[in-house]
Amino acid sequence: MAAKSKILVLGGTGYIGKFIVKASAEAGNPTFALVRESTVSHPEKSKLIESFKSSGVTILYGDLSDHESLVKAIKQVDVVISTLGGQQIDDQVKLIAAIKEAGNIKRFLPSEFGLDVERHNAVEPVTSFLEKKVKIRRAIEAEGIPYTYICSNAFAGYFLPTLGQQNVTAPPRDKVVILGDGNVKAIYVKEEDIGTYTIKAVDDPRTLNKILYVRPPANILTFNELVSLWENKIKNTLEKVYIPEDQLLKYIQESPFPANLMLALAHSMHVKGDCTNYEIDPSLGVEASNLYPEVKYTTVDNYLNAFV
Amino acid sequence: MAAKSKILVLGGTGYIGKFIVKASAEAGNPTFALVRESTVSHPEKSKLIESFKSSGVTILYGDLSDHESLVKAIKQVDVVISTLGGQQIDDQVKLIAAIKEAGNIKRFLPSEFGLDVERHNAVEPVTSFLEKKVKIRRAIEAEGIPYTYICSNAFAGYFLPTLGQQNVTAPPRDKVVILGDGNVKAIYVKEEDIGTYTIKAVDDPRTLNKILYVRPPANILTFNELVSLWENKIKNTLEKVYIPEDQLLKYIQESPFPANLMLALAHSMHVKGDCTNYEIDPSLGVEASNLYPEVKYTTVDNYLNAFV
Repeated sequence: MAAKSKILVLGGTGYIGKFIVKASAEAGNPTFALVRESTVSHPEKSKLIESFKSSGVTILYGDLSDHESLVKAIKQVDVVISTLGGQQIDDQVKLIAAIKEAGNIKRFLPSEFGLDVERHNAVEPVTSFLEKKVKIRRAIEAEGIPYTYICSNAFAGYFLPTLGQQNVTAPPRDKVVILGDGNVKAIYVKEEDIGTYTIKAVDDPRTLNKILYVRPPANILTFNELVSLWENKIKNTLEKVYIPEDQLLKYIQESPFPANLMLALAHSMHVKGDCTNYEIDPSLGVEASNLYPEVKYTTVDNYLNAFV
Repeated sequence: MAAKSKILVLGGTGYIGKFIVKASAEAGNPTFALVRESTVSHPEKSKLIESFKSSGVTILYGDLSDHESLVKAIKQVDVVISTLGGQQIDDQVKLIAAIKEAGNIKRFLPSEFGLDVERHNAVEPVTSFLEKKVKIRRAIEAEGIPYTYICSNAFAGYFLPTLGQQNVTAPPRDKVVILGDGNVKAIYVKEEDIGTYTIKAVDDPRTLNKILYVRPPANILTFNELVSLWENKIKNTLEKVYIPEDQLLKYIQESPFPANLMLALAHSMHVKGDCTNYEIDPSLGVEASNLYPEVKYTTVDNYLNAFV
């Protein structure tokens, strides 16, 4: 059996990055996390770095702006996964330049982990945000770097504990706000499962230069179905407040950044159905739960049980 | 009396941009708004463009990526104001290059309209976001372009109608969530007043190469004072749910982009007090309500009356 690929994660202390780092270490891959020196002084992030170390992860200190240290880090590994945050999408051109110079990388996964940035009906400012990720795709392809793009849809752990309601810390028990008519299907994937699928993909020839769509069948639900599921669990009927699309577009237009970005992402997902409104083109993409049926992913149904 | 400066606004259909465009037209400045062709098909923005036209604003079609059209637009005016959105901060380097080439601009106001990006105690991802605006400041200064940076603090029209509570369309009548201990002062400025102060500043030698801080004395309040003010108006006491800073930092760490950005902005403003926790250095900045005492700004007290 071949040795496990060595994996370097950038953005490993971020929201989805920590699940990727953990999944990599758990799968037995020699795992490296590149963090900025300044991150160590952040109370929450420093705890995370300690937990990485105790899982056998090697912490490398560096910065996207330090080309030499970046090339040096990259030369130690086989695979680079970027989970850099929404403010750092453009900065990945520096990472691409370093990967190109290092010349040894078998697979690069840029920071995606959401919608397919080339198949959506979003409005501004989401359009401009996704366009940054499209530019990174084109830059990777132009340099001939082997890649996989992970379209993992909605983060279950962010969305499900509140059913997407803001400013609440548990799913609603009396009233729920529904965008559009609630009949559009979205896809919710638990972060640990995103980590598992991602790490399976990095050495898989079937995902080489492809998009990996994560569409676990049990987790494709309309918002109304999600609310029904929750109502059945709590044995109660919620008051439903529907926000029509034109009202939502008006809210987006009348909200400053980044509130408009949040609302426009919700519009794309819950009104336009951008997780599900297209078939996967087999020349471009593959589906994770089909490729890896051995992964016992967490269903939305099970996930919600924790909050009853 | 000298002729009024001709003003070009980029981002004029955005959240704060529309107030700048209106204030410019109302002050009698020949006003130009550069918009993308694609903006015209957006239902909300097309309405706005029509209202600009009926106020005598000249609409120019163009794009930041089209250097020639940008230079041509800039050559027609004296002042350039950028209110480009949070996704386009970096793109202002293209605008700076065009202003440099045009060579005729007497004042440039980059997209700021928030906190002083060089005086704050914010955490990530706000740090990276503000750093982009700092880089634009340095680029302007390096090119020797005359500038004014507008630090207008919190948008009253976004914040006050809900007292910063998410997912509600009116100020709370039963319960309010308070970040930190609520004893930190923030500053709320009505968007129309931001527009008025901004347009007054563009021809004022006292604001040349300075930061214009907008700190209307009646609008500097702690969150607890704001809640008291509201309670007095509705003659009711609200239940108060305090979120301690360490809890908020944990939420920020455990939220994906852009939710983490929203929370971290709230942390900077309401917990760290980044609107008010420094004195204005007179070698760097001036204060708007001092410079323009003739402006009858809208007080928070008056603003809230509309919602009782």
